[in-house]
Amino acid sequence: MGGDFAPRAPIAGALQALGALPPQHYIELVGQTSVIEAELDALLRGDFAPLARVRDRIAIVEAPDVIAMTDKPSVALRGKTNSSMVVGIKRVADGHAHGFVSAGNTGAQMAASLVHLKLHTGLTRPAIGTIFPTAKDPILVLDSGANMDCSPEELVQFARIGTVYARALLGRDNPAVGLLSVGEEPEKGNAAVKDAHQRLLASGLNFLGNVEGRDIPNGRCDRGVIDVVVCDGFTGNVLLKFYESIGPMLIGMVAKVAALDAREIARSLTQLDVDEQGGAPLLGVRGVSIISHGKSSPRAMENAIMVALRAYESGMTDEIGRRLSDTMPTTSGNAA
Amino acid sequence: MGGDFAPRAPIAGALQALGALPPQHYIELVGQTSVIEAELDALLRGDFAPLARVRDRIAIVEAPDVIAMTDKPSVALRGKTNSSMVVGIKRVADGHAHGFVSAGNTGAQMAASLVHLKLHTGLTRPAIGTIFPTAKDPILVLDSGANMDCSPEELVQFARIGTVYARALLGRDNPAVGLLSVGEEPEKGNAAVKDAHQRLLASGLNFLGNVEGRDIPNGRCDRGVIDVVVCDGFTGNVLLKFYESIGPMLIGMVAKVAALDAREIARSLTQLDVDEQGGAPLLGVRGVSIISHGKSSPRAMENAIMVALRAYESGMTDEIGRRLSDTMPTTSGNAA
Repeated sequence: MGGDFAPRAPIAGALQALGALPPQHYIELVGQTSVIEAELDALLRGDFAPLARVRDRIAIVEAPDVIAMTDKPSVALRGKTNSSMVVGIKRVADGHAHGFVSAGNTGAQMAASLVHLKLHTGLTRPAIGTIFPTAKDPILVLDSGANMDCSPEELVQFARIGTVYARALLGRDNPAVGLLSVGEEPEKGNAAVKDAHQRLLASGLNFLGNVEGRDIPNGRCDRGVIDVVVCDGFTGNVLLKFYESIGPMLIGMVAKVAALDAREIARSLTQLDVDEQGGAPLLGVRGVSIISHGKSSPRAMENAIMVALRAYESGMTDEIGRRLSDTMPTTSGNAA
Repeated sequence: MGGDFAPRAPIAGALQALGALPPQHYIELVGQTSVIEAELDALLRGDFAPLARVRDRIAIVEAPDVIAMTDKPSVALRGKTNSSMVVGIKRVADGHAHGFVSAGNTGAQMAASLVHLKLHTGLTRPAIGTIFPTAKDPILVLDSGANMDCSPEELVQFARIGTVYARALLGRDNPAVGLLSVGEEPEKGNAAVKDAHQRLLASGLNFLGNVEGRDIPNGRCDRGVIDVVVCDGFTGNVLLKFYESIGPMLIGMVAKVAALDAREIARSLTQLDVDEQGGAPLLGVRGVSIISHGKSSPRAMENAIMVALRAYESGMTDEIGRRLSDTMPTTSGNAA
């Protein structure tokens, strides 16, 4: 029920995903049954008629409450206990579903994921992991929006979570972690980053040291290829939204000087297409919860469902839990 | 003496600037006299021979000490009191020069500017103001690297300084100020940003509210055109370096799919060329101090000298001082 184009975009995305997936996969649409049924019928009578065969792989799970994009997460969670967000995440928590995808209120999705899926042992915060396209292989940037003010220890947690995710989902051996800062020297950065740098040196992770804004588009710094970039969710979110918008702007400028069709160029640069990512996993919780952009198209929702499936099939959740307990210091208090 | 290509790039840039400027302007080269004289002679015997006529508009000011790019600012300032950085900034402080330009150690330049030029009344920190090209008119982003952890009140100071600079140097009437955050709602952002938002509402400035990363390349948000973006120097510096690097990367990608020459495209997009900016003013100090990139080319140094000249001729320094005292709350304690 959430997102700017709900319920049409999530339902259309679900139909497309089922059309592409083998028959053992099915999807539960969580929300107001009558609204979902009406939309599903309309789609299957219209452009989506060729996908009528997947209709019996869709179940509808009733959830009468709707969390608005403007609702305060804590209030929504308390007041709207039968929202599609809460009911859907509970389906994952109780083992009925293997992953949850939403384009709705991000704050509410995080809060509901924390309450119902819960964090892995040793973590104090989850992080949103986003894939940034680069001139080389894509980079995982986390946190890209879950936590505004981060402690040094939280930045180290993100490095641990990111390392496991890059190995499990991006297939990187021994992922190299960079700490986002304003210079490569350990003494460069804000207070949290300078402290986190020292903790990362002692973390046992494959720590590259500080990386700078310029290193992300290059996919590497002077010390080698970067797999994971760690930053607080404020900086990560500013950077992510900047990246989403600078691509179209630059393509427009280049198209103009080269007298080319900007849409034609954009279509060829699929790695810059936010729809291709589909959604970003909320990392650190015990279950698959994929956060999609509020403006997600059916294609973005389809891809987000694929991200959820890969996350589940990779065993990412268990892997993060296991690796975290492997690499965590034995005492939980790790203050410097 | 500072920067990756010193002393050649600053000296060549000075020759080019004098070649372009009317004869009443002259330049002092501050540093080790023998080194500067040798370089100057070599340039004027070589590619710069056509500029021999400007030689008598160059004076050399002896400064035996050299601050390395890796020197700690505070240590450099105490130990190297006769560095080109300190001697040059003192020439501005004592009224012998109207502006100072350096591609040397940024931290040392900031420290020396603070000590010798001093801050305007009512300010606690200076800020580096950088021009970001956008799809519309350029935007002034500050702070882009002087201050890593900023208090809410410092963010408000940056808004005041940026407003005056945008009016004096960019010719904007009633400049519109956006506060960089992760959503337009006042309750979005980190702790400092949320507090600064409330202070900016009460500041009497033309405050647009929060702007997001995506609004910078667009040059506008839903509430109108943006002239000034305020952020802490950590976020601003990450964003600036990301911007400098994403342009060439995207141009390379577009050139590849369109089968065009990337250098050809880059040459046409002069607004993305960091050399065109030349340097960024350190705003808030009582005098013109222009910070150039360590990798500045002669062309970048020439442009930085032009930025210094425009800053001086616009009366920016006095204007900032006057406007700050106009718009400042009458009591210095402005805690919410």
